[in-house]
Amino acid sequence: MTEKSKIGSYKAVAEPFHVDFNGRLTMGVLGNHILNSAGFHATERGFGIASLNENNYTWVLSRLAIELEDMPYQYEEFTIETWVENVYRLFTDRNFAIVNKDGKKIGYARSVWAMIDLETRKPADLFSLHGGSIDEYICDEPCPIEKPSRIKVASKECADKIKAKYSDIDVNGHVNSIRYIEHILDLFPMELYKEKRIKRFEMAYVAESYFGDELSFFMDEVSPNEYNIEVKKNGEETVCRSKILFQ
Amino acid sequence: MTEKSKIGSYKAVAEPFHVDFNGRLTMGVLGNHILNSAGFHATERGFGIASLNENNYTWVLSRLAIELEDMPYQYEEFTIETWVENVYRLFTDRNFAIVNKDGKKIGYARSVWAMIDLETRKPADLFSLHGGSIDEYICDEPCPIEKPSRIKVASKECADKIKAKYSDIDVNGHVNSIRYIEHILDLFPMELYKEKRIKRFEMAYVAESYFGDELSFFMDEVSPNEYNIEVKKNGEETVCRSKILFQ
Repeated sequence: MTEKSKIGSYKAVAEPFHVDFNGRLTMGVLGNHILNSAGFHATERGFGIASLNENNYTWVLSRLAIELEDMPYQYEEFTIETWVENVYRLFTDRNFAIVNKDGKKIGYARSVWAMIDLETRKPADLFSLHGGSIDEYICDEPCPIEKPSRIKVASKECADKIKAKYSDIDVNGHVNSIRYIEHILDLFPMELYKEKRIKRFEMAYVAESYFGDELSFFMDEVSPNEYNIEVKKNGEETVCRSKILFQ
Repeated sequence: MTEKSKIGSYKAVAEPFHVDFNGRLTMGVLGNHILNSAGFHATERGFGIASLNENNYTWVLSRLAIELEDMPYQYEEFTIETWVENVYRLFTDRNFAIVNKDGKKIGYARSVWAMIDLETRKPADLFSLHGGSIDEYICDEPCPIEKPSRIKVASKECADKIKAKYSDIDVNGHVNSIRYIEHILDLFPMELYKEKRIKRFEMAYVAESYFGDELSFFMDEVSPNEYNIEVKKNGEETVCRSKILFQ
């Protein structure tokens, strides 16, 4: 297998209801395209969710970090490239490049996934998948952005509180990974998005939340351009953490 | 021009983050695909938003009614067909068929659009567009669902209240048409969506709302399966009305 053939490439377009007031694709929608690409790439190679489910396993997204110089504008085409960087026993690193309409790489993303047993919800051994053949797809394509960091939030003051509603819930009955991104972006005032753009966005998914759960948002302003956010459910358990770097 | 060539046909797939907990495409996402198809069809025929904007006009969606026997399931492909039914001086009727993966028509939609002058925000004469050539595209394809109805809401009791946030706002600075659908669907409890599905969904767009506006939702239960909803901004002005028929 050539290195090139290990890379999946998926086209998309910045649809009018998927851009923000600046006309730029929202981070939530980009996240959706990135996760879709991961799904397409895995499915085409025989280790997608559907074939995993047959054997009682599924993929769980643990970390996501996206770093961008630019964001596609309304109606512009763009491409997501994706490949597997590493396979460990309990995790796999999958990377992405975001390519604009002119073929220029305008950003990259890194993600970390675990495979879990659907019954026990415990992590499963990735080398047992396909008799270990997943590591045939490891590709040395560069991904020149930093790995997802460890995010800590000290604030005890709740910045916002919402209830998980119908539109938040996916087919597994969980608040979906993209909705967290949207709710986190909604913490910030319009003025900030007028003056600055998101340079880097990180998510660490820790636990699931469900319909009716009260999600509370805690935020540390680490510096004028850097925010750490923690989402808790029902006042206690951490659901996810996020870091946003503006520029 | 043959009747067939007047119909635009656009493929889509029910992506995993676009389905609800039943695994069915959400009405908001279907609405997005429907409105995208309208945009593609108009653009291909030279009366899309971009060419209208050059002459200082734009399309405004006034009514939308969707009626369905079934909804695409996660990962299923589906097709939206769209055509122009009528052109009046100040409105045009555009219809849609929703075709499932097996080529079966599982639903239809009707929409009503006005063209407005971007400066005055007043309706413009559709026959002046392209020298009246828009009526060349009128097509007699059947659309066997009722036209959008007049929706009235009597309730003075607020069912929910939200603030319009960053993720709600489109490139025009307005809360986007799809977000209203999602917020309206979020008024209903999970139990209802477990037992019933939406057979018909209507929207009447009346006025724009903006970032920071307080949106309040008023609801009449017309019958156990029929709800009329009105969205007001800042406690006064009607923004939109909706009717939902469950089955």
